[in-house]
Amino acid sequence: MPTIRTEPLTAAAFAPFGQVIDTSRPPLGINAGTTQRFHDLARIELAGAGARPLISIFRGQHKSFPVALTVMERHPLGSQAFQPLSNRVFLVSVAPDDNGLPGVPRAFLTAPGQGVNIAMNTWHSPLTALEDVSDFLVVDRGGEGDNLVLVNYPTPYTVVLSV
Amino acid sequence: MPTIRTEPLTAAAFAPFGQVIDTSRPPLGINAGTTQRFHDLARIELAGAGARPLISIFRGQHKSFPVALTVMERHPLGSQAFQPLSNRVFLVSVAPDDNGLPGVPRAFLTAPGQGVNIAMNTWHSPLTALEDVSDFLVVDRGGEGDNLVLVNYPTPYTVVLSV
Repeated sequence: MPTIRTEPLTAAAFAPFGQVIDTSRPPLGINAGTTQRFHDLARIELAGAGARPLISIFRGQHKSFPVALTVMERHPLGSQAFQPLSNRVFLVSVAPDDNGLPGVPRAFLTAPGQGVNIAMNTWHSPLTALEDVSDFLVVDRGGEGDNLVLVNYPTPYTVVLSV
Repeated sequence: MPTIRTEPLTAAAFAPFGQVIDTSRPPLGINAGTTQRFHDLARIELAGAGARPLISIFRGQHKSFPVALTVMERHPLGSQAFQPLSNRVFLVSVAPDDNGLPGVPRAFLTAPGQGVNIAMNTWHSPLTALEDVSDFLVVDRGGEGDNLVLVNYPTPYTVVLSV
């Protein structure tokens, strides 16, 4: 199986696929200075009839390295944000589009506290928690229409931890 | 100062003010059974010109009981969801409207893992973390117009921990 090494999740590296949700940019002071607001961290995309934003919690089983990458998915009608509700890291595998199919993947390993917003119609693997079963707050899209495309890689990839 | 005792945060008790975001309802199985989706937990409200949902992180200073409740606010153009990014509890003080002013407050103490979505135009106190400085994922509203009304109670309330 072809092997992909993890890379650190940074805003610049992830930009072709969406946004990193973290506290790395300077905040605004609100609530009479008692709260720092790290403002407007994700571009929420909502397309199609009846589109509306949803808030859900995903509870994902965890995997261990090496992680087999067999199936990719994309949501043609909306973005999907994942924010961990624990301090555990997770794996964000994404891929450019290659004539309607997922291309060669990249595998981003989050730092504790980082989340991601995956852009509309961007290939990504199903949620991949690490270390333990983990909860995530998810902001994605409700409404009419089919918002899920699933494709298997003809040959699965293996994601290994880059140390 | 008049005293308000905390009450546990439950969906039924909080219903006049918004929704509780937690994993108490049965989930859907997704991702070939590897993920449980606790689906569509909050009613996101977005009103006015240019309205769009925002994802931000709030880092809130913490208070200790008894907590003085001096100022209330509301957002006439949108709901505001707060999900803790830690396992710490927080205090959600809300109030019914009383002729355009905040009425007698109620003070909900979350359980670990619970968040809230505060309904559009509902009186609530500024973010009140407990135990330690805490981060929250916040989903609220961007766009044109003035979306913040602040009012001081003529006589502050004191919130005490109900044990």
